[in-house]
Amino acid sequence: MTDLLRTPGPGAEGLTDHLRERWSVSVFDAARELGDEEIAALLHAAQWAPSAGNGQPWAFIVAERGNAAHDVLVQHLSRGNSGWVPRASVVFLALAQVAPDEDGNGPKWPTYAYYDLGQAAAHLTVQAASMGLWVHQFAGFDQEAVARELGVPDHFQLLTGIAVGARGNHDEVSEDDAARERRDRIRKPLEQFVYGDRWGQPWR
Amino acid sequence: MTDLLRTPGPGAEGLTDHLRERWSVSVFDAARELGDEEIAALLHAAQWAPSAGNGQPWAFIVAERGNAAHDVLVQHLSRGNSGWVPRASVVFLALAQVAPDEDGNGPKWPTYAYYDLGQAAAHLTVQAASMGLWVHQFAGFDQEAVARELGVPDHFQLLTGIAVGARGNHDEVSEDDAARERRDRIRKPLEQFVYGDRWGQPWR
Repeated sequence: MTDLLRTPGPGAEGLTDHLRERWSVSVFDAARELGDEEIAALLHAAQWAPSAGNGQPWAFIVAERGNAAHDVLVQHLSRGNSGWVPRASVVFLALAQVAPDEDGNGPKWPTYAYYDLGQAAAHLTVQAASMGLWVHQFAGFDQEAVARELGVPDHFQLLTGIAVGARGNHDEVSEDDAARERRDRIRKPLEQFVYGDRWGQPWR
Repeated sequence: MTDLLRTPGPGAEGLTDHLRERWSVSVFDAARELGDEEIAALLHAAQWAPSAGNGQPWAFIVAERGNAAHDVLVQHLSRGNSGWVPRASVVFLALAQVAPDEDGNGPKWPTYAYYDLGQAAAHLTVQAASMGLWVHQFAGFDQEAVARELGVPDHFQLLTGIAVGARGNHDEVSEDDAARERRDRIRKPLEQFVYGDRWGQPWR
């Protein structure tokens, strides 16, 4: 049996639906496929995320079960991610433009490219929640090997995989993968990272 | 007169509400104040954003009209941002932990800290939309000067200001600031940044 909902963590109770109910699912339904329109909707959410100077310093490779990008990805997953990631319906490989392209266009520094890619990933995640889908981002794979085998140019850097799908049945996965979903969800209290007049001064 | 809605851009039409209607407002209502509960709700959205290894490598300084952080910020805004930013109800100064703290805890590299701070900013933005508020993130200020004057330690880096408030009246601002809100909103089409089997191969 699979619990479909978890109790929101402390502080999350009052958030809007798609944030309050979000968490990183680790047991996906391996039989669920996403249609082209569903995948496109997720990509459009990333497309319309904000970015510094509207630079849109991001790219995505759509790794779907059966395509070449997916085949490469699964060969380079960390041991801990090798069980659950392939059950996701799709994995978006998320890349940031970290240097100018051959025409000199693009960021001199990767700082805001990373930041903006994170924003695009978050927008994709919120859109997925609105469609009844679940997301688990991961960095535990050999990014350099995957980028090399997929022909990614040097001015882009592969950061994360964004696994998306429907929730699956715990009976079909290893105990380790099922246990991931029962971990406590915790966050630092606001007092530890929110300040008022200056750094170290409490807000309120 | 102020248009309260803009037509969603091409590709954004089918997105969930808080993404479809989002854009970066530049004319805020200078009379609108946010209550503590509203500000806390925005911070809780950031708090519950996902992060690599649950590192939560972020911090926020709440710059409100009249507090010391706000006074410092407004002295270091770029010329283009000096008119509209002070009209926002609150500016969250967003910082990433870019190195280990004095106890050796925290990231060795800032890459995922920037990415995760971007995610936290996006979650805050979605929460604001759900509360009828508008957001405009900006990087056009002297981050180093503001960080120094606010006592930010070296292992944190100040990246952006996240201005939040209600929409204001165009009659009360300069023509330049009003004109910002009439700029066309454009994005690259998916074909330019989404690939399938490998880099450069179209998806579908």
